[in-house]
Amino acid sequence: MKAAILGATGYTGMILLRLLSAHPGISEIFAVSSSRAGKSIREIDPGVYTAVEANMSATGGRLIDVKKAAELKPDVVFAALPHLESAKICEPFFKSSVVIDLSADFRIKDHGIFEKAYGCLPERPDLLDKAVYGLCEIYGSEIRKADLISNPGCYPTASLLPLLPVIREYGNEGKIIINALSGISGAGKKAAFNNLFVERTENCGAYAPGKSHRHQPEIKKELDAVGGTDIDLFFTPHLVPLKRGMEVTTLLDLKAPITDCELDGLYSKYYGDSPFVSWDADRLPQSRDVWGSNSCRMGWKIEGKTLMLFSVIDNLVKGASGQAVQNMNIRFGFAENAGLRIYGEL
Amino acid sequence: MKAAILGATGYTGMILLRLLSAHPGISEIFAVSSSRAGKSIREIDPGVYTAVEANMSATGGRLIDVKKAAELKPDVVFAALPHLESAKICEPFFKSSVVIDLSADFRIKDHGIFEKAYGCLPERPDLLDKAVYGLCEIYGSEIRKADLISNPGCYPTASLLPLLPVIREYGNEGKIIINALSGISGAGKKAAFNNLFVERTENCGAYAPGKSHRHQPEIKKELDAVGGTDIDLFFTPHLVPLKRGMEVTTLLDLKAPITDCELDGLYSKYYGDSPFVSWDADRLPQSRDVWGSNSCRMGWKIEGKTLMLFSVIDNLVKGASGQAVQNMNIRFGFAENAGLRIYGEL
Amino acid sequence: MKAAILGATGYTGMILLRLLSAHPGISEIFAVSSSRAGKSIREIDPGVYTAVEANMSATGGRLIDVKKAAELKPDVVFAALPHLESAKICEPFFKSSVVIDLSADFRIKDHGIFEKAYGCLPERPDLLDKAVYGLCEIYGSEIRKADLISNPGCYPTASLLPLLPVIREYGNEGKIIINALSGISGAGKKAAFNNLFVERTENCGAYAPGKSHRHQPEIKKELDAVGGTDIDLFFTPHLVPLKRGMEVTTLLDLKAPITDCELDGLYSKYYGDSPFVSWDADRLPQSRDVWGSNSCRMGWKIEGKTLMLFSVIDNLVKGASGQAVQNMNIRFGFAENAGLRIYGEL
Amino acid sequence: MKAAILGATGYTGMILLRLLSAHPGISEIFAVSSSRAGKSIREIDPGVYTAVEANMSATGGRLIDVKKAAELKPDVVFAALPHLESAKICEPFFKSSVVIDLSADFRIKDHGIFEKAYGCLPERPDLLDKAVYGLCEIYGSEIRKADLISNPGCYPTASLLPLLPVIREYGNEGKIIINALSGISGAGKKAAFNNLFVERTENCGAYAPGKSHRHQPEIKKELDAVGGTDIDLFFTPHLVPLKRGMEVTTLLDLKAPITDCELDGLYSKYYGDSPFVSWDADRLPQSRDVWGSNSCRMGWKIEGKTLMLFSVIDNLVKGASGQAVQNMNIRFGFAENAGLRIYGEL
Repeated sequence: MKAAILGATGYTGMILLRLLSAHPGISEIFAVSSSRAGKSIREIDPGVYTAVEANMSATGGRLIDVKKAAELKPDVVFAALPHLESAKICEPFFKSSVVIDLSADFRIKDHGIFEKAYGCLPERPDLLDKAVYGLCEIYGSEIRKADLISNPGCYPTASLLPLLPVIREYGNEGKIIINALSGISGAGKKAAFNNLFVERTENCGAYAPGKSHRHQPEIKKELDAVGGTDIDLFFTPHLVPLKRGMEVTTLLDLKAPITDCELDGLYSKYYGDSPFVSWDADRLPQSRDVWGSNSCRMGWKIEGKTLMLFSVIDNLVKGASGQAVQNMNIRFGFAENAGLRIYGEL
Repeated sequence: MKAAILGATGYTGMILLRLLSAHPGISEIFAVSSSRAGKSIREIDPGVYTAVEANMSATGGRLIDVKKAAELKPDVVFAALPHLESAKICEPFFKSSVVIDLSADFRIKDHGIFEKAYGCLPERPDLLDKAVYGLCEIYGSEIRKADLISNPGCYPTASLLPLLPVIREYGNEGKIIINALSGISGAGKKAAFNNLFVERTENCGAYAPGKSHRHQPEIKKELDAVGGTDIDLFFTPHLVPLKRGMEVTTLLDLKAPITDCELDGLYSKYYGDSPFVSWDADRLPQSRDVWGSNSCRMGWKIEGKTLMLFSVIDNLVKGASGQAVQNMNIRFGFAENAGLRIYGEL
Repeated sequence: MKAAILGATGYTGMILLRLLSAHPGISEIFAVSSSRAGKSIREIDPGVYTAVEANMSATGGRLIDVKKAAELKPDVVFAALPHLESAKICEPFFKSSVVIDLSADFRIKDHGIFEKAYGCLPERPDLLDKAVYGLCEIYGSEIRKADLISNPGCYPTASLLPLLPVIREYGNEGKIIINALSGISGAGKKAAFNNLFVERTENCGAYAPGKSHRHQPEIKKELDAVGGTDIDLFFTPHLVPLKRGMEVTTLLDLKAPITDCELDGLYSKYYGDSPFVSWDADRLPQSRDVWGSNSCRMGWKIEGKTLMLFSVIDNLVKGASGQAVQNMNIRFGFAENAGLRIYGEL
Repeated sequence: MKAAILGATGYTGMILLRLLSAHPGISEIFAVSSSRAGKSIREIDPGVYTAVEANMSATGGRLIDVKKAAELKPDVVFAALPHLESAKICEPFFKSSVVIDLSADFRIKDHGIFEKAYGCLPERPDLLDKAVYGLCEIYGSEIRKADLISNPGCYPTASLLPLLPVIREYGNEGKIIINALSGISGAGKKAAFNNLFVERTENCGAYAPGKSHRHQPEIKKELDAVGGTDIDLFFTPHLVPLKRGMEVTTLLDLKAPITDCELDGLYSKYYGDSPFVSWDADRLPQSRDVWGSNSCRMGWKIEGKTLMLFSVIDNLVKGASGQAVQNMNIRFGFAENAGLRIYGEL
């Protein structure tokens, strides 16, 4: 199968190169970059070139532009592009390829909510109904038939996996309060002061708190959908000096107390067959547990009616490129964990 | 003035050595260690020796034991010792010196709460009434007269400074939810697997969540005192890969909405004269803002009746050794910022 | 095939667990630990348990002791044990299994040199002649037939790969000066002050310089063997705040100037068929190029007769556990890169 | 005294702000920035504003442009500007103020060497003879009378302090080989991919090796001057994931063996009165020993005629802004350590 990566030089693109180079179902990779077309992969990404050159024979080991990529008719297209640009750049592929979009362009179907979060209306409202939200463990049956998959954000993935089953089966009362910690790669490969080593090491802090982060509505619409209510969601992200990794601490009140055993049963019902979601009743997860893997590890603490949930993912893998590959695996009938790691790196 | 540091080889002891070596009111430092008495400071702490040797002439630049320190009659004793050992080891100094205890041994006056948090009754219940809780900006007038000062924990310091004025003047409704991020030095200089570089870099996670951390009752008793109620406090600490630094994110509901202007006025009333507490209405603090300093920087976000507070300190300075020196400054009539840095290191 | 890992809870053991859990030729893994036998892998190594439990069915997902491991008759034994203990603990396996020893116990055949470096005579001198030095790209044909493989140290691997072909084909004049940078995991999983996060972050420095590091004679004996002389080798390691990674900068004088083209040809001759060794004539390698992989990346700079060589490896993979698996692959006829990654992680 | 900082928003400018805000001899600071004039220091540098606002009353706590700064007639001007721009921008101050230039513009008096290193001729050849090389411990008597002080680079400072006395008194034979490790702040506050957190954490490597780094001729001209010969100097810098810090490992051959005692005596002769230079005969320095301080710590290892020297500095303090303040102290007759820290931060 032939796969194209639009935006191959960003961090999610670089991870996709690594994952697809080792994927048993991919024979040819087209690395696409508008600004660096023509450059050799050896020059662009020294860490991966020896692994991927053999899979880039059609393009002589070089990056190509979008037009050329469209001519080569990839079976699947991974769009690792900036929000508000992705829908436009993917245009040549919508009819002929399965498109897995890692941007936010197709994540929110409500135009008003989208506009509030991103400052303009969705570029392709005509495709919104067609797009499936690619949260693999929840929407697997829809993904199987989708030709346009909207890959979830990292914060929503880590927040929703522990929370959705609880809200769906038990509901909640009052506020849901999410505090998240993210590694710096979440900001993308941008040469901005805020992303410099000297600015971020030995430093941490919150940003865009409460209801002001773009991922707040992405999480809320999923919770509202299963909870059947207008959920009062506070989501506060924090930057911490990790390269990769994400931890989410959630606090909510249930309508009645729950037991460890019930919660364990709930997660078994939803995730018992998933290769990637695991949990411990007696240990809080650490972000390193899943570093480099497509796994989500969860834990919890119950205090009366109050439930605290803890979850970790690798923001670039399960939070982006790994889940994109998982979506491809589901869509094309590969083993769900083909080409994806389950263990966390030391 | 002569100062003794009990536990001079731990992290808070090492910071005390640095601060006191540059303090204009200290002429002689006794560095005390039960396990390493007799060793030269040059061998024990290569980073500080050139700065402190001149202040250690009475002991020939060497560490001494507690007995010897007591004979040398220090004016002030800083006890940078483990919980449950400190009260005992300080015994020879209670009558003759001002004791500033950095452990938890005198922080909680209620025996039951102490026992629940630390697993045994307080060692010296007879001294509990005499001990003043050394949160400098709040208890300055008591500190001025105290001979036994119980230096607050790092989490309580960072949590209480933004929160106490709000609770005292406005009260609150429902839960108070604190999520804190701490650097690794908060765990002390212990050769434990959990503190290893390889275990902590590229890793983060929560521990002792909700009501199970020892600092939860230390924070709660202060809030209860000013709020006049039994406050429902959830406190969840997280370890992040910083050497030094602490960030606290607090969410609470007020009885009625408050404005930015009112909050700014409130903090001006409480902290307008303090050299160390500052705040911005339009920017969230970052832990680097105060790295190496004795400052606490604060910020906030208001959403209807919900108030989110953000605060940062250096856990080893304002959260431990710096506040201890500030307590000494207040107690002995030095300028409150003598020997203490206000700016955050780059 | 059945594999045992002696010392499964140390860093090299943990990496072996990860690599073998994904190796196509390994059906059963015995995780061995003298001190923690009986514990579940879930408890011991939370990052890997979901990946490896299925391969530990014979032991119920639990660690076992050496005696039990010997009864289970593994085909291959990886000894990830401390120097001077390994040869002893491996005793039950020498006759029945292929033993790949990651310690130094069989690396140096000269008793005097061994004693000087390690402070005592080799434990099993009778096996020294049988042991093959497992530097895969150099000793492949010997490894193919070996039943006892002595896996090289990380510093020697990174130093010798660029240097051995040069010395063998061109010789040298005067000193060879190696300066190496190592990540902290090179010190193993030891709860020592020196390995603490607070001690190692924002810190770097040299140790055991010149001729005093134990790896100096391990490197020298290989160079002497191909150079036919008593080479004057200065080897100075430095600790830098990486979790994993190693960079080696080597300076030597050749007898006559060499060209970029000749050096490129030399490396093609030695490593053209190797999946793991690569080089660039126009770029110096960075340790991240090979993070998490079994690769060695090399570069150089020529100044007249002086040649500067640069090489990077992941100290835990090509410098330890990955090369051990590569040795197994060669010995048992698997593809040389089976279960091993070629690309460096982002 | 009034001090101007040209380039107050870069890293060396930010350190100067911090050092001068606490300097007993400075009453007024002019923070100068061409691109950000008019902005408040509160907005530009949140970490320092509470410390420096009182010293910026003449400018209302705001950054000003060069023209305005010249009108305010500072006694001393610190130029923390890019190479090749500094000499030009300093023009208005050369007649009326003492100028301490932290760029390379006045470091090399030989036009040809300057051109080779920086790609063009010196901007102000007429001032080269007047400029004094501000290596404080070596050129103190010249600095005392200088009106234009050229502050040394960080690599030359750390390399020359241990090396110059040796070369002057004992000479050397053959190559001098310097390998240096530098923290990332050495690259300045530039929003470039190479300086991003994600690119630099868990990564290290050499760059500009041998004779190709701009600091090689700056070091060599000092060595040539005292050695009286054309010294064959190999200087290879490495980037390691520190925010701040520098370690230099030097290897050279003497004409005859030297003893520890002789070397200790040599350094006592040169640096016995210096508050900032210290050394240990029996311990190699670590970069943390001097983090945040203006100190240089040294160590060594002798192997026959071969001498290995080790030295550490904080690249932003003794390697830049701290030495600049030390130069001011010497020039204006303050205590040499006024406003400068001697101890290394924990």
